[in-house]
Amino acid sequence: MSEVVEKAKIAKQVCRKLSTTSSEAKNQAILAIAQGLLQNIDVIVAENQKDIDAAIANQTSQSIIDRLILTEARIKDMVEGLEQITQLEDPIGEVLLEKALDSNVLMQKVRVPFGLIGIIYEARPNVTIDAIGLCLKTGNAVLLRGGSNAIHSNTCLVSIVKKALQGTEVSPDAVQLIEGLDRKLVEEMLTLNQYLDLVIPRGGAGLIQMVVQKSTVPVIETGVGNCHLFIDKEAQVSMSIDIAINGKTQRPAVCNSIETILVEQQWARNHLTTLNDALIEQSVKILGCAKTQTLDSRVESATEEDYYTEFLDYIVAMKIVESVDQAIEHIEIYGSRHSEAIITENRENANKFLNEVDAAAVYHNASTRFTDGFQYGFGAEIGISTQKLHARGPMGLPELTSYKYRLYGQGQIRQ
Amino acid sequence: MSEVVEKAKIAKQVCRKLSTTSSEAKNQAILAIAQGLLQNIDVIVAENQKDIDAAIANQTSQSIIDRLILTEARIKDMVEGLEQITQLEDPIGEVLLEKALDSNVLMQKVRVPFGLIGIIYEARPNVTIDAIGLCLKTGNAVLLRGGSNAIHSNTCLVSIVKKALQGTEVSPDAVQLIEGLDRKLVEEMLTLNQYLDLVIPRGGAGLIQMVVQKSTVPVIETGVGNCHLFIDKEAQVSMSIDIAINGKTQRPAVCNSIETILVEQQWARNHLTTLNDALIEQSVKILGCAKTQTLDSRVESATEEDYYTEFLDYIVAMKIVESVDQAIEHIEIYGSRHSEAIITENRENANKFLNEVDAAAVYHNASTRFTDGFQYGFGAEIGISTQKLHARGPMGLPELTSYKYRLYGQGQIRQ
Repeated sequence: MSEVVEKAKIAKQVCRKLSTTSSEAKNQAILAIAQGLLQNIDVIVAENQKDIDAAIANQTSQSIIDRLILTEARIKDMVEGLEQITQLEDPIGEVLLEKALDSNVLMQKVRVPFGLIGIIYEARPNVTIDAIGLCLKTGNAVLLRGGSNAIHSNTCLVSIVKKALQGTEVSPDAVQLIEGLDRKLVEEMLTLNQYLDLVIPRGGAGLIQMVVQKSTVPVIETGVGNCHLFIDKEAQVSMSIDIAINGKTQRPAVCNSIETILVEQQWARNHLTTLNDALIEQSVKILGCAKTQTLDSRVESATEEDYYTEFLDYIVAMKIVESVDQAIEHIEIYGSRHSEAIITENRENANKFLNEVDAAAVYHNASTRFTDGFQYGFGAEIGISTQKLHARGPMGLPELTSYKYRLYGQGQIRQ
Repeated sequence: MSEVVEKAKIAKQVCRKLSTTSSEAKNQAILAIAQGLLQNIDVIVAENQKDIDAAIANQTSQSIIDRLILTEARIKDMVEGLEQITQLEDPIGEVLLEKALDSNVLMQKVRVPFGLIGIIYEARPNVTIDAIGLCLKTGNAVLLRGGSNAIHSNTCLVSIVKKALQGTEVSPDAVQLIEGLDRKLVEEMLTLNQYLDLVIPRGGAGLIQMVVQKSTVPVIETGVGNCHLFIDKEAQVSMSIDIAINGKTQRPAVCNSIETILVEQQWARNHLTTLNDALIEQSVKILGCAKTQTLDSRVESATEEDYYTEFLDYIVAMKIVESVDQAIEHIEIYGSRHSEAIITENRENANKFLNEVDAAAVYHNASTRFTDGFQYGFGAEIGISTQKLHARGPMGLPELTSYKYRLYGQGQIRQ
């Protein structure tokens, strides 16, 4: 039996018990994990150093090494994250609907865990702890597959977690990490319908697409954000600039940052250079259409491909459009259904944009950077869904649950 | 461009408009379809006859021919179904959550259509009309792929639908039927992520499995029901028999009928032959474990495979179990997560069963035959989901929708 099947099977076996474990016991288990991490900061940092050394030896890019590093401060952030999760309401057992059927059978629609959730992710080892906390809180077992460059960190973290769970009502078997580095193990996970109830990939566009293409287990796609800002004819100039700068430069490497700015032609004739002054001052490279270049010679030429690109960098694509309709059409073609914003004082255009743009989150006169579980007040986030099935946008605890119908009769049969 | 891509593209193009079409206009369109069907009963019956003739020539089984037949009465049932759909509340636009974020951005979580839904189904041509009615009501366009043996019926029905829509606010383009019979067209549909937002297969286990295995488009699995009745030690005898007979014989060919009866050993020693008398009187063949056969020589021997089988016929598998735990374990291994029932006067065992059995619907002292959108009061049903992502159990109108976040600011940026 392969490592994947073996671990999935072990985890699945504890799902039934975990699904009925009390909120208090689940919280105690999560706090025990937090305690375990605090007591092992030195060990974690030492194991993490092995990953860093290997990454340096492999000439890994600095941005990936940055994500890989676990310092005492970052470990304490992980601990704080776990503590926050214990403060959140447990969604499991919530009665979503209750009614008597015609035959007087009492029906309850009740929130239940999925069962076993697979999480496939890349460099950042803090995802290991986040995912464990969120899955256990919602009564789910979890099968983790982290990036190969974080293997020492992840193995160490999961071993601390399993040890911490030993004294609790949550079985250490509920948390499993695939340690083998062969990529085929991921493909094996993706077809393990017998044990896995859900797979959530977290990472770059390549990973997400691979999972969507190969998985027969239900998937929630997350995180690819080719987000647009549309500056309409009647947009306030300073507001447009503030939101463009916030969306592009506050944290360029995250999925809710802006990748393309669409500018209404008349606004562009009057204010494009002012907008571009601000972008260029923030070291943003602008790649634009021919019309943009005519209005501002500092703009470099954009290719068709640029409009599809999630730069995740100080680069923005730009295009002049004739109307809100043309903006909506551009987003329909190039967008990734994540977050889209319109700046305008025209209420009709705003409503048209919010109604017709097909995305998880649509903004009027606000930054796309707000698309985030914590900003939305969910208190947690396992990822941001860009698909429409089950969950859309920031996913908190309820999005990690399913439901079942419980029916109570006194011998009723169907007529 | 293939027929599938061409039709999907046409349908996708009207999604944006359809998503904002008023409830009144959508209802008028559905009533126009109903009117069109009523005016064309003779044409439909004549086209349907071609399918029947071909089925007879192909020596198709009588049960499939029964599902294929469209009589005046069945067409009027379809019309009535459409009229009922217009009476239901439109879920689109419902505000599911509204709150001000910390930054005073107003957030609304609003129900929206999926966009373009693919329905892949088998013999029954009434599904064509059901699916069109339910999809249009929820603002979704629909790409249909029916069984090849119903091609004349389906082509005729869709052509009537498209003609009826011409005078309405809903574009005839919103309804598309794949007419080509090549099976490769289905596979093409299943990887059309660019246009299709969701695929729902309706049919036998083979079709469902094929779709789950091959689709990269998100899927909702429906309808395979390997349902169990567990008769516990403290089960009332007459209630157990009534529910066994109702579950097995009221309509054996449907997914919520019972396929296996699990009997607690002590109850079995006292009452098994009485139960079996009733089953045999209803012409039910019983396939049982060795213990069952010892208690009742009329029981034939069951194979391991029988416990996995959805007989959809007057056949039931039977097994003696020692406890509610053993019943739950059997269901965990062999069940299809559809509907499961326990008969008992023991409240603790009932709760254990309802909490721990992992299925869409779990029943205490009631028949599994209640798992149905109409019985649950949803007023409609596109299918019964046996997966946990998005929808579980009977799917009504809300299950054919997604949601989006709309956010209204006054220039807020993220700090």
